[in-house]
Order: sequence, then C-alpha cells, then structure tokens
Amino acid sequence: MKAISSRDNPAVRRLHALAGSARERRKHGETLLDGAHLLTAALQVGWPLKEVVVSDHGLAQADIASLLERAAGVPVLHLPDRLFAHVSPVDSPSGVLAVIDLPAPPPVKTLRDTVVLLDGVQDTGNLGTILRTAAAAGVADVLLTPGCAQAWAPRVLRAGMGAHFVLRIHEGVDAAERLAAFPGPVIATALAAGARNLYQTDLARPVAWLFGAEGQGLSAEVAALASETVIIPMQGAIESLNVGAAAAVCLFEQVRQGQRSS
Amino acid sequence: MKAISSRDNPAVRRLHALAGSARERRKHGETLLDGAHLLTAALQVGWPLKEVVVSDHGLAQADIASLLERAAGVPVLHLPDRLFAHVSPVDSPSGVLAVIDLPAPPPVKTLRDTVVLLDGVQDTGNLGTILRTAAAAGVADVLLTPGCAQAWAPRVLRAGMGAHFVLRIHEGVDAAERLAAFPGPVIATALAAGARNLYQTDLARPVAWLFGAEGQGLSAEVAALASETVIIPMQGAIESLNVGAAAAVCLFEQVRQGQRSS
Repeated sequence: MKAISSRDNPAVRRLHALAGSARERRKHGETLLDGAHLLTAALQVGWPLKEVVVSDHGLAQADIASLLERAAGVPVLHLPDRLFAHVSPVDSPSGVLAVIDLPAPPPVKTLRDTVVLLDGVQDTGNLGTILRTAAAAGVADVLLTPGCAQAWAPRVLRAGMGAHFVLRIHEGVDAAERLAAFPGPVIATALAAGARNLYQTDLARPVAWLFGAEGQGLSAEVAALASETVIIPMQGAIESLNVGAAAAVCLFEQVRQGQRSS
Repeated sequence: MKAISSRDNPAVRRLHALAGSARERRKHGETLLDGAHLLTAALQVGWPLKEVVVSDHGLAQADIASLLERAAGVPVLHLPDRLFAHVSPVDSPSGVLAVIDLPAPPPVKTLRDTVVLLDGVQDTGNLGTILRTAAAAGVADVLLTPGCAQAWAPRVLRAGMGAHFVLRIHEGVDAAERLAAFPGPVIATALAAGARNLYQTDLARPVAWLFGAEGQGLSAEVAALASETVIIPMQGAIESLNVGAAAAVCLFEQVRQGQRSS
C-alpha cells in the first residue's frame, strides 16, 4: 500500500482530474467508482478494478476493510482524509474509490427487446436513477443521445448503484438510425391531452421508450420517432413528474403487464 | 429596484445565509425559491412572495422579465451576476429567486386519506422528487420524521417543482402517534422474499405508505408500524430502486387501481 501526502503528486492530480472532468476521463480512458456499495457491485460481477484508493477514515471502517480483502491483487493507494476529499467525485467522501477503464462501446446489434432511449438527460442523478430503474425492470439496452451527460461519470455511476455493470449502455447514438427497424411501438410520454392513458396501452410486447430532459422534454428530432404517445394520468394540481419518476412508472407498468400476461 | 454590489451588504449576507443553512432559515423564518418555474408556480397559487431577487443575466431573459411584471408590488432586489451566484442555493444560478416566509405547520387533523410518510430521507433531490410525485398522484398529506432533510430547503423546493404549494407537509412528526388511528393499511416496501407482490395488493383504498432513506431503509421504530409489506418485483440483476423511483411505482400503481375501480 502506497501512501501520499501532497496534492502535487502525479497520482493525486490524475485522480482529481478524473473526478472532475468528462474530457479528462475520455483522455485517460478511465473513470472512478465511488463508495463501498458500488465497489462491491463491481467485484460481484468480476468487473476489473485497476486501483483502489482508500482514506484514513475508510481504512477504519469494517465494510471497506473487508472490501480491500476481496480486492486482493488490486493495487491500493492510501490517502490522508484531506487528500481523499480532494480527489473524491462526490460531496460527502465515502472513504473508498476505484479506478476502472472506460469500457468499450457495446456492439451495435439489431434491437429486438424493450429498450430505453434517453434524449438530452443532463442531470447526473436522474441519468443514474433511470439506468438503475431500467436494469431493475429487466431492460438490457439503454441508448443515450449525444446531449446526455456522460454515462460513466462518477456521479452517474453512483446513482446507478451497479446498473452499469449489467446493462449495455450505448452513448452518442443516432436515435433515428438505431430505432428505424425496431419491431415494437416507439413510445413517448406527454402532457398533451389526447394522448392515450398509460394504463390503457398494451405494453406486453417490446417497447422503445423515449424519455427527454427535465424541462425541455424530447428534442423535435427524437419526438418525431414516436409511433405512440402516452400520458401518465395525474390526479392533482401538479401536472408533470421528474423524468426518473416517469420512467419508473412506465417501465414498471410494463413489468406488471408482462407478469399478468405470462 | 435596488441594486447592490458588495458581499458585505446586509441583504446579501442574509440571502447567502438562507441559501446555505437550515439553521439560518429557521432563525429568520424564511427560505428561498429558485428559478422561474418555481416562482411561476408560487404566483399561480397566490403564494405570498416577500422579495424577488434578479441577476443581470436574469433581467435579460424574457420569461423572467414577464415574471417580474406578474409579481408587481413585490420589492425587487437587483444583483450583479457574480453576487447573484454568491446567494444562489443551486450550482447553476437561474437568474431569479424569491424570499418567502417558512409556512406555519399544517393543522394536526385525523388522517383518513392516502398519506406518504418519509423516514430519514436526507437527500434533497429525492425528497423533492417524492413530494412532486405525491402531489401528482393526488396525495394531500406528507409526513416527515425528524431525520428527514428540511422540506422547505431551497433544493427540496426546486426538486418539488411547486408540490410544496399544494401539499400539506408535516415535518418532525411522531410517526407512531400520527398513524395510530389510520383507517387503512400501513404499507412498507421491502426486498424481503415472502412480501406480497405490489401488483397483487389491493390499493383501491386509503393507504399510509412508508418510505425510508436510501441505503438504510426504514428505522426499526417506523418499520414496526407497517401492517403489510409489499415487494416491487425486480426483473434483473439489480435488486432495489432509488427511493424516489420506488415511491413513483407504488403511488401510481395505486392511481391505476383507483381508476380501474372507479
């Protein structure tokens, strides 16, 4: 275990750059996993860790100590709490993080099963939450348009809680091209009266779900791909949901209908 | 319109304190609404604004300019962008905010309709999202245990997108006392196998929903209040949802069942 005490140390500078900048992550081809839960999820699926970084405070915690045992063979860098906070990608440093390679893009195959397409979702928490929800709902492929936040950003990874390790995440996609031959309905959610009620829509089949950015909604280009528009029936004075909440309602209504029909 | 240029100005110091500290908000009995969408929602329901604060950048935006017209009669404080960023409660200053009084707690009445109880939900984004979802699902009362984040914190207000103005939000509640005479089932969500499938649970009746903190779940004290435990059936390798996503799935399954039965 190496110990370092200066911000000017090259390893510390590299970690700080990875924590703070999508450009630096792309340049180095690396990103950071933050926190014991996410590292445990990575180890469970055998995801290769290049280096584990631990703080004084982290070393004293039982769950992190046992994590280090499970990650035997992975180089460990030990930092004082103050330096760990400096390289941590989150506001409340957890005490442990790991460096991983940015994965190669998944192969481009014909999409036959339910898929989620996210258009311009910039908020890292929303993006990670939707990835987590999609994985929990049994979705295998998530497509992101170029306007989305970086899927492998540390904050998205943290909100994803391990979803990244089980999904195929396609970034920077051309939505029209990827959905051109999709065998099922392409469904957008809308506020528009006249759209079909979600609960009266047949979802027991493969669906391409389109979810847009908070506020703006879908870009005109992506909205034009929808073959159906559904509305989540609101009961109160609030007429829209957070995009992560809307995705959860839609994807689990599909789970419900699939259970009923199987 | 008053203009100010120094951080040492007492009005600027007060705004900065309100933006950053729950204690300062309680001390002054005030909080901040951030962004044109939230201010519009407040004006729509006639919520009293004490003061509107606008930046140079904000003044140049058409939606904010028309907001200032609608808020005629409310004192306006004009700040240079740099000072506005200093007093803004969010990372990306929107250009406009308002000071409001912290509202008096809603009256303690017998709860007869569906209610959401949040236990130890500290994450401001999750808390605001759940309030928004509850309001959209037609829930009128939300109860928060003392371990939750401050419901009227600027970041919770922002994520709530106006839900605060239509809900009765009861903070610092004694959960056992408030739910003692609740007429319907008190339902917790669980990962435990053996819990009943959400979709096989009768929700076309008043329900008291219990949602706990991300990670920890419900405190033992609150978990003990549950008369039923339901599980959201997960389809993939990810075995839990973000608490905001879980609440959306549960509350809108109840909406669906209510539509079907009505």
